[in-house]
Amino acid sequence: MWPILPKLHVMKIGHRPERDKRIDMHCVLVSRAFGAAGITFDFEDAELETRAESVTKHFGGRFSIGTGVNWKSYLKSWKEEGGEIIHLTMYGLPIQDLIGEIKLSPKDKLIVVGGQKVPPSIYELADYNISITQQPHSEVAALCIFLDRYFEGAEFNKKFDDAELRIIPQRMGKLVVRESGLERT
Amino acid sequence: MWPILPKLHVMKIGHRPERDKRIDMHCVLVSRAFGAAGITFDFEDAELETRAESVTKHFGGRFSIGTGVNWKSYLKSWKEEGGEIIHLTMYGLPIQDLIGEIKLSPKDKLIVVGGQKVPPSIYELADYNISITQQPHSEVAALCIFLDRYFEGAEFNKKFDDAELRIIPQRMGKLVVRESGLERT
Repeated sequence: MWPILPKLHVMKIGHRPERDKRIDMHCVLVSRAFGAAGITFDFEDAELETRAESVTKHFGGRFSIGTGVNWKSYLKSWKEEGGEIIHLTMYGLPIQDLIGEIKLSPKDKLIVVGGQKVPPSIYELADYNISITQQPHSEVAALCIFLDRYFEGAEFNKKFDDAELRIIPQRMGKLVVRESGLERT
Repeated sequence: MWPILPKLHVMKIGHRPERDKRIDMHCVLVSRAFGAAGITFDFEDAELETRAESVTKHFGGRFSIGTGVNWKSYLKSWKEEGGEIIHLTMYGLPIQDLIGEIKLSPKDKLIVVGGQKVPPSIYELADYNISITQQPHSEVAALCIFLDRYFEGAEFNKKFDDAELRIIPQRMGKLVVRESGLERT
């Protein structure tokens, strides 16, 4: 029997309308492509949900998205249900020192990313505050490096069930396979 | 004597005004934090240059930024000077199959990232078209995973000379050291 792996879910907190639009979508796409089960946002955004669902419809797999969820209640209920919270921040402890311990823990994991101005109480609610380098960069990059290290590069060979579209790697150009046949663009 | 490592520089092509503003800054920050020597954009953006220079001033190291550079001439002159071009695209060959070969090559490397709509001729100008998974995600993530694999995780321990600010990893909260003393925020 295979061990049941802990669930890994992402929450993004904080949003500056318009300014963060693309960053939010990148967080969705990275979470999905790099192996998280889903993502939750603390602000409401129906368009983001529609776009995320459209990607999953076309490229397959299961991936949940929710928006408009109160972050504090969400984090608290996550902990009440026995899960742990990993907050990615440039101020935290280095990922390379703690990823081993985090991988060993059987608890479900909520990975929290924010903008520059996350509420200070997140540092206290989190079981781990983890930095990916101690330099300013990007929540998109922090998230993808965390997932990459957690899943040990499995994203490179991850299969997505029920995909309508599949990309076939090419030395040059683009090759996309549809369920109904080949399409070279 | 240490071997002289090939130079690694990033070019971002394509820009939708306003919409891409934060993505562009994330590309700057990731390039710097993950070890590239600099980044060049094909559109002019004085504000982006100022912001990039301000990060380097505060957090140290050497990092060059240029904007408003014609991408076609830049790619051509890069090749004429003996460098090679690595274009990151979800349609390319898997990074895990080619990173070994790329690391062995002594040529200077220009890593090209674009939006969804890069000009098709980039696929032909590139020596390598490389995919980081065959799923849609983010040029920020593609760039950081490429740099991470190329430099073999060295970004985690990279030191930046002449930093005015240094972040000291904390289990909780934020600790920033200024050259002139400690500052806890």
